[in-house]
Amino acid sequence: MNAPEPAGPLFASVLIANRGEIALRIARTCRELGIRTVMVYSEADRDSPALRLADRRVRIGPAAARRSYLYPPAILEAALGAGAEAVHPGYGFLSEDADFAEMCRAEGLRFIGPPPEVIAALGDKTQARELAAAAGLPVLPGSPGALSGGQAAKDVADEIGYPVIIKAAAGGGGRGMAVVDDPADFARAFAETRASAQAVFGDARVYVEKYVRGARHVEVQVLADLHGNVVSLGERDCSVQRRRQKLIEESPAPGLAPELTAAIGEAAVSCARAAGYVGAGTFEFLVDGAGRFFFIEANCRIQVEHPVTEMVTGVDLVREQLRVAAGLPLAAGAGAAARGVSIECRVNTEDPGRGFLPTPGLIEEFVPPGGPFTRVDTHGVPGVRVSADYDSLLAKVVVWAPDRDQAISRMDRALEEFRVSGRGVCTTIGFLREVLAHPDFRRAEHDTSLADEMTSGRRRTLQGATRP
Amino acid sequence: MNAPEPAGPLFASVLIANRGEIALRIARTCRELGIRTVMVYSEADRDSPALRLADRRVRIGPAAARRSYLYPPAILEAALGAGAEAVHPGYGFLSEDADFAEMCRAEGLRFIGPPPEVIAALGDKTQARELAAAAGLPVLPGSPGALSGGQAAKDVADEIGYPVIIKAAAGGGGRGMAVVDDPADFARAFAETRASAQAVFGDARVYVEKYVRGARHVEVQVLADLHGNVVSLGERDCSVQRRRQKLIEESPAPGLAPELTAAIGEAAVSCARAAGYVGAGTFEFLVDGAGRFFFIEANCRIQVEHPVTEMVTGVDLVREQLRVAAGLPLAAGAGAAARGVSIECRVNTEDPGRGFLPTPGLIEEFVPPGGPFTRVDTHGVPGVRVSADYDSLLAKVVVWAPDRDQAISRMDRALEEFRVSGRGVCTTIGFLREVLAHPDFRRAEHDTSLADEMTSGRRRTLQGATRP
Repeated sequence: MNAPEPAGPLFASVLIANRGEIALRIARTCRELGIRTVMVYSEADRDSPALRLADRRVRIGPAAARRSYLYPPAILEAALGAGAEAVHPGYGFLSEDADFAEMCRAEGLRFIGPPPEVIAALGDKTQARELAAAAGLPVLPGSPGALSGGQAAKDVADEIGYPVIIKAAAGGGGRGMAVVDDPADFARAFAETRASAQAVFGDARVYVEKYVRGARHVEVQVLADLHGNVVSLGERDCSVQRRRQKLIEESPAPGLAPELTAAIGEAAVSCARAAGYVGAGTFEFLVDGAGRFFFIEANCRIQVEHPVTEMVTGVDLVREQLRVAAGLPLAAGAGAAARGVSIECRVNTEDPGRGFLPTPGLIEEFVPPGGPFTRVDTHGVPGVRVSADYDSLLAKVVVWAPDRDQAISRMDRALEEFRVSGRGVCTTIGFLREVLAHPDFRRAEHDTSLADEMTSGRRRTLQGATRP
Repeated sequence: MNAPEPAGPLFASVLIANRGEIALRIARTCRELGIRTVMVYSEADRDSPALRLADRRVRIGPAAARRSYLYPPAILEAALGAGAEAVHPGYGFLSEDADFAEMCRAEGLRFIGPPPEVIAALGDKTQARELAAAAGLPVLPGSPGALSGGQAAKDVADEIGYPVIIKAAAGGGGRGMAVVDDPADFARAFAETRASAQAVFGDARVYVEKYVRGARHVEVQVLADLHGNVVSLGERDCSVQRRRQKLIEESPAPGLAPELTAAIGEAAVSCARAAGYVGAGTFEFLVDGAGRFFFIEANCRIQVEHPVTEMVTGVDLVREQLRVAAGLPLAAGAGAAARGVSIECRVNTEDPGRGFLPTPGLIEEFVPPGGPFTRVDTHGVPGVRVSADYDSLLAKVVVWAPDRDQAISRMDRALEEFRVSGRGVCTTIGFLREVLAHPDFRRAEHDTSLADEMTSGRRRTLQGATRP
């Protein structure tokens, strides 16, 4: 994959269509590559420390995301006005919006992500399932496409057997889903999920899939360029989730046979090839208790949890995204052997004792941890205000160590060292440390139900916790 | 080197006989290993952020180091009073004081470093030279031992030929040295170096060695345990020095043939074996323009620049020190293959425009850089006061990248991002960035004279700099 490097920067200027820690993280790599950055910001973010690293800042609207970070005309105007050559969407917001990618193309702006057609195909979860199945990947039994009629849907559920999960076809990020255990509950859950899908994604279409209890969430980081290179950078285990939102991620996936993770990696690469994927993407799988794996969905963007892959592989994923977008082949070394173990913990401003309710407010004290093999991606500083308008991710604490036990000890040290407080502001730090100490997590015998069961009291927490 | 791991922590409690960033760095690893820490502090450091990470804090005396960090009775009393089992001396202060190591032993405290006899033998630079020569290492022509008579010394200098360097036998850290180019200057330089050696080290003995112009400073990180394992963790290049004080360090050494660095590594291991070395130690060499290398001295402690070795090897050197001190063999993996390139820059509170004069004072703004593959070891925070009583190291910025060009770009980005200011406080940040941009440094064609020539104006700096 070696190729002559360009004499100048990959792009003269890139607009970062995002906020918070990911805007800062993208800006850092741009600076290292000699690329000038244009950052957009809403009224709520006008004092954000992330803006410090921008070469140019453009205010694009009020706090409400629909009128700023989710509003394509404002972002395109900023990009064109500032003379940006490309747009990096980060994650969330417009990052998986095929229409926005298409608008960028129409305006002559390079969208840093796969082509609009690929985003559209993989963004529709039922189409993605079909594409994966056609590429030979195992998928869970389910409806062949989206279902609009309640009875047709229930017929599918009855046939594949309960529990089933009803999912929004346009969904993602763990929202717009319902698990149904009892056929008697199906009709109501179906109607509710459609209503929620319409409200959240503006698209009521849903589909039905077999639900796997006790599964592990394993995803593969893929990089693909325009020269036919498609590589896996290994997998991440993201099984520690609260209400299907990831809290702790790690690479490699612990406690799985190397043949299994290799097979999952190969499946992801096959699927990426079949989809004509370009750039950095993630292919998500469930692994059941019997060690079988099933494709569930693909994410056409950089992931929140990408740093764990960077820590074990040494690859700067944003750099690779920019290279691919500039038409270059993947850098030599992308796809290189991983070393050691990396774990990420999401420090959110939420109250774990009240169902992870967001607790926005003013951060007064903010001293992130440091030290060997410890990375903190954050836009937090003392005096920053956490807005209720956006998600509650305040900092990602990422550690690396030669083995998993050491990585857990290092993470616990880092979280213990982290000092963050503000009036009314809670964080997930204490809960994260409880999960790290949980025997099931330590032995890598946990699944996606661990965190929810810990908060609901169904799974005993640290004190006296034993496995039957 | 595998061995059963102990069930509990290596030590119940360790006293850290140091301050600043290295005290914080040692405390972090102790916490990860479940070891309680006792930190001592002088009056000047009573508000140091490093103390936050201690489980117990003991005030040992006034600001003057001779009455606190360099005063063994106060430290021993603190250790015994707090029930510490071991003492980690860090670097500087008492770290290479054989008498202190002996006192610790006499009090039943484990000194984290080599045995007093080894410190004494390697601490006397003339003895260390002899030991290295006897182990088959190349040493520079010079006096066989310390010289007290000026005429005998001049006879040696005349015989080996000018330039020569006069060095304090008890020296280290780049102090107590003088280069003599002209025989007519010898007598005065000899007398002055003796006086300076007496003042700084309390020991007037000096020796004479051939001086190598245009040399590279290359040192090898060695780890040795009590079970006969001695390994090299690769070399560091520390050729960017101002008045023989290191400013920028990197691993591996750039631009040297792999056979040469392998030979230097083997020489260091031979020397460590011959000396009966135990723990983490550094063996320093000069490499001349013809690619010949010469042993110059050994350092019996953790080095300021140890993080670059950690970044490329993945080994936590303080953890290995603690393991070795507890009688355990080196951890599996210590000595593993290195990956990529790491660079460290020392951000000192000094004025490069005035001969690197220390500029103590109150730090008002302090925002260290972060991001992928970037580590900052620092005790700095907004509001911390830099005392004139100690050295001027405020922060070590350390980066890693797959290759040297990327590491330089990343370091430059990190330094650009670093915001530190205070009334009357200068830092080395601007000068460090000038060195990073210098064509000689970029091409790895620099030597130990680069930084001094840049500040003295003898070497052209960035603007229009070309090599003849």
